[in-house]
Amino acid sequence: LSRGMFVQVRNVLHNMPACDVAHLLESSPGKTRILFWDLIDTEFHGEILEELSDDVRNSIIHQMMPEAVAEATEGMDTDDLADVLRNLPDQLYQEVLQALDSQDRHRAEAALAYEEYSAGSVMNTDTVTIRPNVSVEVVLRYLRMRSEIPKTTDTLYIVDEQDVLIGEVSLTALVTSQPEVIISELMNTDIVPIPATMPESEAAILFERHNWISAPVVNEENHLLGRITIDDMVDIIREDAEHSMMSMAGLDDEEDTFAPVVKSTQKRSIWLGVNLLTALLAAMVSNLFEDVLGQLAVLAILNTIVPSMGGVAGNQTLTLVIRAMALGHVSPSNTRSLMIKELTVGILNGIIWSVLIASVVGLWKQDLYLAIVIAFAMLMNMIAAGISGVAVPLILKKFKIDPALAGSVILTTVTDIVGIFAFLGTASWLLM
Amino acid sequence: LSRGMFVQVRNVLHNMPACDVAHLLESSPGKTRILFWDLIDTEFHGEILEELSDDVRNSIIHQMMPEAVAEATEGMDTDDLADVLRNLPDQLYQEVLQALDSQDRHRAEAALAYEEYSAGSVMNTDTVTIRPNVSVEVVLRYLRMRSEIPKTTDTLYIVDEQDVLIGEVSLTALVTSQPEVIISELMNTDIVPIPATMPESEAAILFERHNWISAPVVNEENHLLGRITIDDMVDIIREDAEHSMMSMAGLDDEEDTFAPVVKSTQKRSIWLGVNLLTALLAAMVSNLFEDVLGQLAVLAILNTIVPSMGGVAGNQTLTLVIRAMALGHVSPSNTRSLMIKELTVGILNGIIWSVLIASVVGLWKQDLYLAIVIAFAMLMNMIAAGISGVAVPLILKKFKIDPALAGSVILTTVTDIVGIFAFLGTASWLLM
Repeated sequence: LSRGMFVQVRNVLHNMPACDVAHLLESSPGKTRILFWDLIDTEFHGEILEELSDDVRNSIIHQMMPEAVAEATEGMDTDDLADVLRNLPDQLYQEVLQALDSQDRHRAEAALAYEEYSAGSVMNTDTVTIRPNVSVEVVLRYLRMRSEIPKTTDTLYIVDEQDVLIGEVSLTALVTSQPEVIISELMNTDIVPIPATMPESEAAILFERHNWISAPVVNEENHLLGRITIDDMVDIIREDAEHSMMSMAGLDDEEDTFAPVVKSTQKRSIWLGVNLLTALLAAMVSNLFEDVLGQLAVLAILNTIVPSMGGVAGNQTLTLVIRAMALGHVSPSNTRSLMIKELTVGILNGIIWSVLIASVVGLWKQDLYLAIVIAFAMLMNMIAAGISGVAVPLILKKFKIDPALAGSVILTTVTDIVGIFAFLGTASWLLM
Repeated sequence: LSRGMFVQVRNVLHNMPACDVAHLLESSPGKTRILFWDLIDTEFHGEILEELSDDVRNSIIHQMMPEAVAEATEGMDTDDLADVLRNLPDQLYQEVLQALDSQDRHRAEAALAYEEYSAGSVMNTDTVTIRPNVSVEVVLRYLRMRSEIPKTTDTLYIVDEQDVLIGEVSLTALVTSQPEVIISELMNTDIVPIPATMPESEAAILFERHNWISAPVVNEENHLLGRITIDDMVDIIREDAEHSMMSMAGLDDEEDTFAPVVKSTQKRSIWLGVNLLTALLAAMVSNLFEDVLGQLAVLAILNTIVPSMGGVAGNQTLTLVIRAMALGHVSPSNTRSLMIKELTVGILNGIIWSVLIASVVGLWKQDLYLAIVIAFAMLMNMIAAGISGVAVPLILKKFKIDPALAGSVILTTVTDIVGIFAFLGTASWLLM
């Protein structure tokens, strides 16, 4: 590329499907990304934007002229269009909205009326609806007349005169039925429509659990508003599954791998700042035992082992509980069982690792009392780790704080402090 | 339940869809789980087993008689049947295989011929195939004659006399075309079939990127073997996305929230054992500086801050890189950019946090030299964190070791050792 083979690259890019170009852009550092983008014909910009992850999409849009953004969004799916607009800075947003043609502006405003991350904001309005009192043959004739229906249509929705959803019929049922069968005999009325106000993550869990391909979206009066398709849900399922991991490291879900340095540093510094505070807190606890540390350097050497083990054990429990909560496996009725289980695991872990660390320290430092001290501290901290691994996320959830975001840091603080107190406290009592 | 309201519970269970019963079982502690299971009519066992996660399914199957397992697997999808059999202990496996009827045994053996985690092992063989030289009308007549096709069918596959895949036609195209149109004019021949030997995770990435609902599976000679549907891929996408988080805490992907205590303790102990070794390694590094620690207790107090900050910063980079690798965003061509970016973030982080920690320590301990020592150690460790956050997963991948599993522990060892060396080393040189 650096050798100026622009024409060749351009041809290659234009022969790739939009999803592969999007993948290439996501895998490219900032400068190469813009270079690629400028090589692509503007008519393909829309399709590619639809396929990009939020962070990367925003980084590209912020470099485009409002008219170019408006042009690119032409013919975009409603949900993607709304998503692009939502992420624009205020001024750019107004300019782009002005530049849209009236039909697109209308569509965009309708989609923007739903809250971000609601089922309404990810739905498409391209549903095919039919009446219950017609025959299969009439429906087939109607579809042939339309000559095109959305690609991902697997189900036709049956509505009454007021657009109230009364049932659905799958394309597979339609093509395997005799022409004279009436739709009302064929339709499935046992459906669970998604309210437009449902959070998209909840809708995604329903899709996953029921193996849906698409599902109808309705308002409070059960009027059909649109439909959600599995391809949009797959992205949400992945994001939600990644959310916990990324949050636990203090990162954004959709963090762009090649985000600019200053932006990355800024985003990550919050987490490092919080960690500095907890590290200082742990140092202050150690500071209480300055005397004992000054007299026995061996304590300073061993001081990190117990907190470190507690941190790992606690984070195992925490990760398990956070995932179980995300999957909807934790409810008030089983909290007690979960707590008892993890507490028992903590006690068992405590016994195993305190015997082991006592043997190691006893042999290494040839000091029986020191071995007893570290064994006791290990046992205490493992139990604390088990309890707080369950309690911290549950308490955070009660206060509506994301356990994946704050859980790890609070848990580590608990295991650090318990570990240091148990070790240095027992040491100053038994060894001094 | 404990009050013996068995009949009511039984009725409720039987009126729930299988996926909801599965969810209930996954949310139940061991004893309640078995109680529920025994309340459910054996005829529903198969459906429910299909919906359960691996770990929970195995815990239930291990308590069933071979005949009961064989009965439950009747009519299961081929891929689920193979999955159940694969996870049985050897003896039970033979017994269940004997108890299956010959048709199911044949199906199971065919599916078991594919390696676990390959596309072949998750495919279903219930494809609907047609010939290219017939008209839409003929196809519709054929489908009506069959009177049933698999629910998730969205595409019919077109094969020649040797069963070689030559194209596909979607149901939506079929129902919107005129009856006299010939399939060969309608079919899409620009398809990317999935080889049966492709790893299922790769297939899942293709589904996600191309927004597929289903895709054909072929052998090396392009013979159609079956099809994969999005609902099976969704589970794999979630598992893969969760895999990194669970592995980073040393847990199994599908770990059962309510697994028995001993089993849980056993599974987690490997990770704790590895951590104990690295904690001891860090203690040994501190041990090299016993003299200096003995003379300056303040060093013991501050000794944990630098390693802790390095660990957090390093894990942020590591998490980002592991996710980028899972999404296929990292290739030899952009490794250098990624390394330079994270190194720069490391230097920037180093400057920010060394200035901050120097100020805090300078004010707290009123010691300029101590402040310089800790600032220098922080800068060094942040740079080490940035470099190893990128290098560790890349090197592990080269040696075919899962970076999510081993990355975090190796990285933390690096940042611990660099942090302690930099802090205590500089201290013994400057302060003694």
